Amino acid sequence: MKAVTLDAGGLHFQPSHAEPTTADGEVLVQVLKAGICETDLQLARGYMGFHGIVGHEFVGIAQSGDHAGRRVVGEINCNCRMCPTCLAGRPTHCPHRTVIGIDRHDGAFADDVAIPEHNLHVIPDNVSDDQALFTEPLAAAFEILEQVAIEPGDQIAVLGDGRLGYLSAQVLSLVTDQITVFGKHGVKLLRFGHRGYETVQVPSADPAELPKHKFDVVVDCSGSTTGLPMAIHMVRPRGTVVLKTTVAASHELSLAAIVIDEISVVGSRCGPFDKALDALADGRIDVTGLITDRYPLDQFRRAFDSAASANSFKVVFEIGSAP
Amino acid sequence: MKAVTLDAGGLHFQPSHAEPTTADGEVLVQVLKAGICETDLQLARGYMGFHGIVGHEFVGIAQSGDHAGRRVVGEINCNCRMCPTCLAGRPTHCPHRTVIGIDRHDGAFADDVAIPEHNLHVIPDNVSDDQALFTEPLAAAFEILEQVAIEPGDQIAVLGDGRLGYLSAQVLSLVTDQITVFGKHGVKLLRFGHRGYETVQVPSADPAELPKHKFDVVVDCSGSTTGLPMAIHMVRPRGTVVLKTTVAASHELSLAAIVIDEISVVGSRCGPFDKALDALADGRIDVTGLITDRYPLDQFRRAFDSAASANSFKVVFEIGSAP
Ligand SMILES: [Zn+2]
Ligand SMILES: [Zn+2]
Ligand SMILES: [Zn+2]
Ligand SMILES: [Zn+2]
Repeated sequence: MKAVTLDAGGLHFQPSHAEPTTADGEVLVQVLKAGICETDLQLARGYMGFHGIVGHEFVGIAQSGDHAGRRVVGEINCNCRMCPTCLAGRPTHCPHRTVIGIDRHDGAFADDVAIPEHNLHVIPDNVSDDQALFTEPLAAAFEILEQVAIEPGDQIAVLGDGRLGYLSAQVLSLVTDQITVFGKHGVKLLRFGHRGYETVQVPSADPAELPKHKFDVVVDCSGSTTGLPMAIHMVRPRGTVVLKTTVAASHELSLAAIVIDEISVVGSRCGPFDKALDALADGRIDVTGLITDRYPLDQFRRAFDSAASANSFKVVFEIGSAP
Repeated sequence: MKAVTLDAGGLHFQPSHAEPTTADGEVLVQVLKAGICETDLQLARGYMGFHGIVGHEFVGIAQSGDHAGRRVVGEINCNCRMCPTCLAGRPTHCPHRTVIGIDRHDGAFADDVAIPEHNLHVIPDNVSDDQALFTEPLAAAFEILEQVAIEPGDQIAVLGDGRLGYLSAQVLSLVTDQITVFGKHGVKLLRFGHRGYETVQVPSADPAELPKHKFDVVVDCSGSTTGLPMAIHMVRPRGTVVLKTTVAASHELSLAAIVIDEISVVGSRCGPFDKALDALADGRIDVTGLITDRYPLDQFRRAFDSAASANSFKVVFEIGSAP
């Protein structure tokens, strides 16, 4: 099968990679489309030392198991379901877990991918393949509402004008209409402005130029080490900063403000796929027009360059088609 | 009156300092005893640039107002009670606040101190002056229970074997009996061991030598920049780190673990004086034997040296006596 793999030498296109083998409890999924996300860009730079087939945001058709023949998306953590962490209800933190396309488990930039059957979610009929591609990042955005009690009228700042910022702003706007988006790219901010969010183009990373102590909640989707200091500057005393992006670099950071202002900083990663699919199905979340570029797998270099550029929003591999 | 003051030249003893003037709503309090805390040591090193009379942990006798003649302790934040932050129920974060002995308001290392009357709390008759001296740090310890939902049986780590660690461990032990204290000083840890807490002497600041992902909640009372990386290492996925100590230095810190492990880091500062006084009055919290050194004001240098040494626990100025 075709696949995009990563090794110490970087990314490669393999026209005839071996088919995936399915471990116990896994089923084979034929991949229709797969999206490139920020994590993939970091993996390609060597972050986490992953080697194998990349890709974790996908839409496909289950080839076996209870969902055979159905369109599915899949949660990315493959857990053991037996250890104390799993039994305590935190399977996404299983210390034995592998992660599809990220950590010791081949991913979805390929014709086929092996996925634990209990990770699969059937896509509602009225959700298109293109929409369903956003299930994983949208689930991550819905996780904010699971972790922080947000009230109507709360003032929210979203840092970052990319995909996760856009989905987070939409999820937060289900609760409050007071949303301000801070980003670097005028072009990307337009998309937020069209939805009625206030937007602020941030020319520099100097927090002193930003409003101080203004927001009840600041969601950092900036993907940058400058995000957290900005967020700490902008959140009100006893407010909450939600950290959404994994930045591998270390921060030089003064934490005194966290104590003095009694701020909560909450790390946030995966989220509930069912809530994301529901919101796509009933139209509460709109992802139309977000896919800016589409490539076949063998044009992986152009696809990754595209995904890293400021002008693209979501870059997708078109891989297979339904029978 | 006698007073210990701080200016750019350091600490000074003033045998005949002017009496404090009381601002609107303030009453004069005759100081009986006052404790030196970590913040005072940092102030003396120039942290926050405070100039004036130092001292914010005190027991005294109100000289006027509704509580005249009664023994009192006082909250340290002097707020405006009129701004949006005060009216939103966060008076300790009033942007116009001054802080007794810390920020633009003379403190209690003196014969008399001026305190806003609504900051005062009358000390129950069965709470001694020595016990009441611990009201402010004990209130800060009770704040942990306001901010984090702790369940019986939860595994808690307390980082730091000093005063705040000791009071925090006691407050936490009101809820769970699974408390482990990590500290550098064998002598200080003995005090925790006597109360039945598990203790671990930490020889180095290398987090890798400490248990990983073990604790539901880690409370950092270490007063050191090494505390947070240790806490992040030890807390379980989706657990909570409570940051209690203001460290002025900046941290070099990798925040990826906060996101990957979905940790909450909660800054925590002041707390409820009424709960602290109640717990001292009904004997739930035991502070006997914590005062290791007592000095008159004019021996302020020995007192501060004592407070900074590893062998002392709580150093107190004996200032006045009840009429
Ligand atoms: Zn992703
Ligand atoms: Zn497990
Ligand atoms: Zn203090
Ligand atoms: Zn105020």
